[in-house]
Amino acid sequence: MKIALITIGDEILTGFTTNSNAAWIGQEILKIGANINVQVTVSDNEKDIKRYLDYFSSENYSHIIVTGGLGPTHDDVTQSAFFDFFSSKAIFDASYWEQLKSRFAKRNILIPEKNRNQAVKPHNGDIIDNQLGSARGLYFSRPKNKYFALPGVPAEMKAMMINTVIPLIVQDYSKNSYIKTINTIGLGESAIAEKLEDVIKKYSPKIKIAFLPQLGRVDIRLFSENKLFLAQITDEIEKILNRNIYGYDDDTIETAVAKLLIEKKYTIATAESCTGGLLAHRLTNVAGSSKYMLGGVVCYSNSVKIEQVGAKQKTIMDYGAVSEQTARELALGIQNKFNSNVGIGITGIAGPDGGTKEKPVGLAYIGLIINDEELVKKFQFVTNRKANKLLSSQTALNLLRLKLMQ
Amino acid sequence: MKIALITIGDEILTGFTTNSNAAWIGQEILKIGANINVQVTVSDNEKDIKRYLDYFSSENYSHIIVTGGLGPTHDDVTQSAFFDFFSSKAIFDASYWEQLKSRFAKRNILIPEKNRNQAVKPHNGDIIDNQLGSARGLYFSRPKNKYFALPGVPAEMKAMMINTVIPLIVQDYSKNSYIKTINTIGLGESAIAEKLEDVIKKYSPKIKIAFLPQLGRVDIRLFSENKLFLAQITDEIEKILNRNIYGYDDDTIETAVAKLLIEKKYTIATAESCTGGLLAHRLTNVAGSSKYMLGGVVCYSNSVKIEQVGAKQKTIMDYGAVSEQTARELALGIQNKFNSNVGIGITGIAGPDGGTKEKPVGLAYIGLIINDEELVKKFQFVTNRKANKLLSSQTALNLLRLKLMQ
Repeated sequence: MKIALITIGDEILTGFTTNSNAAWIGQEILKIGANINVQVTVSDNEKDIKRYLDYFSSENYSHIIVTGGLGPTHDDVTQSAFFDFFSSKAIFDASYWEQLKSRFAKRNILIPEKNRNQAVKPHNGDIIDNQLGSARGLYFSRPKNKYFALPGVPAEMKAMMINTVIPLIVQDYSKNSYIKTINTIGLGESAIAEKLEDVIKKYSPKIKIAFLPQLGRVDIRLFSENKLFLAQITDEIEKILNRNIYGYDDDTIETAVAKLLIEKKYTIATAESCTGGLLAHRLTNVAGSSKYMLGGVVCYSNSVKIEQVGAKQKTIMDYGAVSEQTARELALGIQNKFNSNVGIGITGIAGPDGGTKEKPVGLAYIGLIINDEELVKKFQFVTNRKANKLLSSQTALNLLRLKLMQ
Repeated sequence: MKIALITIGDEILTGFTTNSNAAWIGQEILKIGANINVQVTVSDNEKDIKRYLDYFSSENYSHIIVTGGLGPTHDDVTQSAFFDFFSSKAIFDASYWEQLKSRFAKRNILIPEKNRNQAVKPHNGDIIDNQLGSARGLYFSRPKNKYFALPGVPAEMKAMMINTVIPLIVQDYSKNSYIKTINTIGLGESAIAEKLEDVIKKYSPKIKIAFLPQLGRVDIRLFSENKLFLAQITDEIEKILNRNIYGYDDDTIETAVAKLLIEKKYTIATAESCTGGLLAHRLTNVAGSSKYMLGGVVCYSNSVKIEQVGAKQKTIMDYGAVSEQTARELALGIQNKFNSNVGIGITGIAGPDGGTKEKPVGLAYIGLIINDEELVKKFQFVTNRKANKLLSSQTALNLLRLKLMQ
């Protein structure tokens, strides 16, 4: 079995619409243990649609799903592409036309003549009903291929997928597929791959594994038809990656930290220079964060660092605002001012300007105080301002997580 | 000129990742007046990548852009697919390998041997530098086709698109197509469409227009081959939408506010409860924000509101932490404490918990003080926590913008 998905629309190609239909269909197909093998987006024109219907037929795709272009307007060309591709004669469906007219009448709208072309059916194919809109789907079957045309409107497409397309695919194919995501931080994609090389070999091809690097973290996704193997490989990966793992599936580093803070009944306060409030923002993205988050100071100017957080003017004069010493005083100062268990101080050069040879853009110091234990670390991130803010906050959250786990 | 985009990854086909790279690239290509003609997503395997390199070459696509699969692990197969497709000999790039090693060393990481394959270059193609990560891009040129392989990590892909791919496409493309985006806030999509109905009719079909609603704002995109018409319609839209327009093209509400603050030589400080630092984060996303941003206090707990910002205990007791009175005192308090021109106080119920019948989730008060002028406004946003944080910060920025324009 091979499944191809054709999504239609200039608004997807031009990026005005993100292709979330494709993502949703991919997930639904995965749930029955199958896969979309290829997905193509083409413009709203008959020629391109037919070209790919033809191409995927010749490549022996068993199921070819098309979404979009079934509406009543000039750029809705999927129906005529299908009719032409299958040499269908159009039969006017008088009973559906009556149904459409009465639906429009109920909303006090005179039905436009344009909608008439939605009331035809092919002499050699089937109609897929639409409970939610006026554009019905199409279904054609050949000995080795099944073809579906669905509307692009998400709710209508989804209803047809669930009620008609998925059951037809399941008839041809049914396997259970299990998925687990392991969320890691602190190691690059290649370092993880190297550490897991033997485990991957051991379980291949029973387990499929994918690495998903993101800025400041890597997710590891495991797929298998065997639940037991999935549990076993997860155990083995846990032993190898250990504290580089901060969670599973939808966990975030923020929720991991939140859980630890709540467990220990610790409160936290932040003093942020270069991250400008991003760390506090992330800590408060977690529902219920008022359990641990007292607040923080965004100390962009030196006077705020001194007056509102408690860094010493002499320290800033002697070592600079971006220094180990200042980061430490920010952490200590905020812990003291807010009377929290945890104090975090971040100071760095986010860029793009403000770097020097000694203190380049991307340099950051993170100070962390938990009760009376302290830690200050130096980091060199990248040259992009927003990435620096993200990486600084990410690293601070991870330092905190590791300390709280000790 | 025909452009094909190949995005690589099981993650996209299975729907774990929405194909936002394709949308972003579509938009960037559109900005130069061109179009992605077809986009295909294939699995992480060499055969499929080569199949579509071959297919699009035979279909005379002038530019073929591939993203994803350039990392160092087993499922990163784009490099070998390209090398095989172009019959490239791999030349080991010792100087890049040294560079990589020293980059890793700076972060105190021993470089994995796996990364070695990122330090090769083809004998018959070019390398595209990567300032943000270790995977470099590839560029091959044939008389009628240009081929690009870029990483899938969005920040890295975007940098290469902007610095290398777009300029190379522009060299080949000289159609005069103009695009202008008008950034608006404060009106919904349908309200804007209604207000602009006559203008749209007047300029159709010489100007194509698209509405791009986002959370808390709507972009209006105008396309034309005629620069004069584009300027004329922009003028007319400006007259109609007036102060609902905060910028053009890549402007953000943050940069609009930054410009006004710098113009007036005003400094700003923020006191944030429900937004938890997001407003400060956004104000400091603008490069050079230290010109106006002194800092702020994230006052999550009541004691921080009182002790660190200067809200009165009695006010919070009498009216509640989420009240007009408290918002006003937060704004006044932070202006006073930080000695800034502008003080903003935000207090609300972000949710999902903490709402009552009188004060439901989504309720927010924003206090704004500019020198000695003050304004407090009440808002009812939505039920989603992150959306509430975003809408509250967005609305605060817009209130400030409108006041500064007076």
